[in-house]
Amino acid sequence: MRIGIVGGTGGIGEGMAMRLSQTHEVRLGSRDLSKADEASRECRLAVEERGLPCTLGGCSNQVAADFGEVVVLAIPFKHLIGTIESLSGLEGKVVVSPVNPMERREFFTYVPPEEGSAAQLVQRLLPESKVVAAFNVIAANRWKAIDEELDYAVPVCGDDAGAKQTVLNLIRGVPQLKGYDAGPLATACMVECITPLLLNVARYNKMHDVGIQFH
Amino acid sequence: MRIGIVGGTGGIGEGMAMRLSQTHEVRLGSRDLSKADEASRECRLAVEERGLPCTLGGCSNQVAADFGEVVVLAIPFKHLIGTIESLSGLEGKVVVSPVNPMERREFFTYVPPEEGSAAQLVQRLLPESKVVAAFNVIAANRWKAIDEELDYAVPVCGDDAGAKQTVLNLIRGVPQLKGYDAGPLATACMVECITPLLLNVARYNKMHDVGIQFH
Repeated sequence: MRIGIVGGTGGIGEGMAMRLSQTHEVRLGSRDLSKADEASRECRLAVEERGLPCTLGGCSNQVAADFGEVVVLAIPFKHLIGTIESLSGLEGKVVVSPVNPMERREFFTYVPPEEGSAAQLVQRLLPESKVVAAFNVIAANRWKAIDEELDYAVPVCGDDAGAKQTVLNLIRGVPQLKGYDAGPLATACMVECITPLLLNVARYNKMHDVGIQFH
Repeated sequence: MRIGIVGGTGGIGEGMAMRLSQTHEVRLGSRDLSKADEASRECRLAVEERGLPCTLGGCSNQVAADFGEVVVLAIPFKHLIGTIESLSGLEGKVVVSPVNPMERREFFTYVPPEEGSAAQLVQRLLPESKVVAAFNVIAANRWKAIDEELDYAVPVCGDDAGAKQTVLNLIRGVPQLKGYDAGPLATACMVECITPLLLNVARYNKMHDVGIQFH
């Protein structure tokens, strides 16, 4: 499957690229083409020096968006609207939002937009796209630690059953990662707010990169 | 430690009573004294027929509140305000809220009160009590399956450090259960909304009594 990662030079974008490019064709996009090329080269090296296959290339965000059957918006919430408005051609595509709108005050807290969640905001801006919330709850460092298995739960929300299944299949391709249908897009707020909770748990219990499992 | 469970004849109250009465003195309260006595007798039987110790008695909600150094409000959100207003003498005590304000619509959704969370509502109604949000994310059936270990995470929120530590110690006394300081009471919304998420995950993935772990 062809996957385009918009904002791919952040930790989560790079980590996802390293994991997913072993079994999918992945393009890592950035506003800055030289950054995309450099990040792509470093990620490819890290994967290939472990003797693993890698199909990864750097490009602009628009080329990543054009390339992907699945387009991942691996960007901080504060850049979400601007980045989406800079892109075209996402109609009909599966658009994945791993975005968690949150603020660091005395503690981390969930600050959703008026649509109810970042994923619903994305759907409002891209009414013709099949928006799916997924990968919200996995820390960048865990994505990038490619020698370790990602033994985590990934709740997946979306209104388009086919798009949701596509993302659940993507998740199934990553060893140990477990995808769960968490309901329609209107439930994304309950997924997005897990991340500030996990950041607080990490902080108050002297842990690092806390993830979750369901059982 | 003396623990009073208000609304103890519900599934979570009975389950907590069965687990905690093996190492603590527990009183199981109800509006209906005969129900409290019957539930208490059944719970005690279930524990004792496994050869385990049990110090459990049934009583009114007020007697449970008077008895407990820790008072657990094991009541549905819709009865929370009425029950609290019917009680007196909770000043200075550790009051635990496992309450999750939610509604079942097309799916389960978190519907917090204007205070931000059920726990913050409890704190507003009981300004002199040390309110702690805990035990929100464990299904009643899991509590009651006393032959099985409770291998779950319990995020704990509260503004009083001593009260929070008391609850974390209580949690440590239950085999496999793992307590985590999740921050001040203002973060309780991020804990309370995990339960509707888990109910949706159970429903859409044909699972039962889903719980969480952090790692």
